[in-house]
Amino acid sequence: MKQSKSSHYGRPAFLFDLDGTLIDSVYEHTLAWREALEKMGIALPTASIHRRIGMSGGLLVHAFEREAGVKFSSAQVERMHGLHSAAYKKRSQQVRPLPGARDLLLELSHLHVPWAIATSGKLKDAKPSLAMLKLSAKVPIITRDDVEHAKPEPDLFLAAAAKLGVEMPHCVVVGDSVWDLLAAQRAHALGVGLLSGGFGENELERAGAYRVYRDPADLLAHLDEVGVRGE
Amino acid sequence: MKQSKSSHYGRPAFLFDLDGTLIDSVYEHTLAWREALEKMGIALPTASIHRRIGMSGGLLVHAFEREAGVKFSSAQVERMHGLHSAAYKKRSQQVRPLPGARDLLLELSHLHVPWAIATSGKLKDAKPSLAMLKLSAKVPIITRDDVEHAKPEPDLFLAAAAKLGVEMPHCVVVGDSVWDLLAAQRAHALGVGLLSGGFGENELERAGAYRVYRDPADLLAHLDEVGVRGE
Repeated sequence: MKQSKSSHYGRPAFLFDLDGTLIDSVYEHTLAWREALEKMGIALPTASIHRRIGMSGGLLVHAFEREAGVKFSSAQVERMHGLHSAAYKKRSQQVRPLPGARDLLLELSHLHVPWAIATSGKLKDAKPSLAMLKLSAKVPIITRDDVEHAKPEPDLFLAAAAKLGVEMPHCVVVGDSVWDLLAAQRAHALGVGLLSGGFGENELERAGAYRVYRDPADLLAHLDEVGVRGE
Repeated sequence: MKQSKSSHYGRPAFLFDLDGTLIDSVYEHTLAWREALEKMGIALPTASIHRRIGMSGGLLVHAFEREAGVKFSSAQVERMHGLHSAAYKKRSQQVRPLPGARDLLLELSHLHVPWAIATSGKLKDAKPSLAMLKLSAKVPIITRDDVEHAKPEPDLFLAAAAKLGVEMPHCVVVGDSVWDLLAAQRAHALGVGLLSGGFGENELERAGAYRVYRDPADLLAHLDEVGVRGE
């Protein structure tokens, strides 16, 4: 058994969040939720909506209910999700991949480092973002449709690791929100934070990030810090 | 002389930033700058644009130049400011006062606590936001037009305090960005941070905030913590 797992530790697998981590879409999602909430008669500060992006849609709506002191019926919740989807779609023309996102993924593939994408969104909503990254059809993608609970529950990352056939302690979760990092801790994976979703460095560290980078390009430039050796 | 200044310490004067502090406009300014930059051929992550909002327009453009590794001519800088103004105006219909903003200002007036507004923006750009707060024409407003340097230089807050006739050590600067709090330190005023601009609590504390609240409503609910006693 001695050292038999050393290659795993030398080249961990990477599990990526999508919105805010590979795609610069957090601000659009924030304003789309604000628009949906306003249409439901709820006024919340934009910054507090921002801090909920990345968590499961169900928990997000519960958080808004608590904050606004209201209780929605299931029909109202459904309507709100529809309003958000429409408001996001309206803004999606302005959404771009983050600097270095595609280069980072290509470099990992080039180095034979396994990686997957795990997003709290539904596949239909994630499709345009995935298309922007021009990924091979073989890339393992786990969405809200594949698991019972989204982030900060660990299910998405557990399913992504299972699809790669890698054990959790060999996985590095990369995300921009505290919800990714809390889910990483619950999944017993290491967490790496990116500032590209607009959370502060300290917020990500307090949620468990053992390293924080500016965006995918900055992570790519420092891969050797998180266990990926070049050729 | 004994205790002659005690009333000053009991009831400090308040100097308020505008965008992100009284008005929920930081996300609109962020996306307006991103649109202006993109039209100039510059792609920067939205989150890094966000973190510059609130600083002087000149410094902000310098920061973008550094980050993108470019150098603009003065004609290009002027064009970029024009593009930002137009892009912001397009979004300004969605801008709202922050929760509690007007109530907070009314309560201070009611308690005879002097207060003023000091914004890095120009008066013409700030006017719609000021109108939203339905302020009396007597409220002292200091804008970019009144001083040589905007935040994080202390000039705006120094001018606001002078207009109120209050010495800086008796002033509390209230702002949502690190630029407000750095300017407060340089002006030798106390700084109070609000999370309503989307900066993290730790970012504001590290920049000098001695107390941080969620938004104007939360500050109003805790005025006794920052030296304002009720009747």
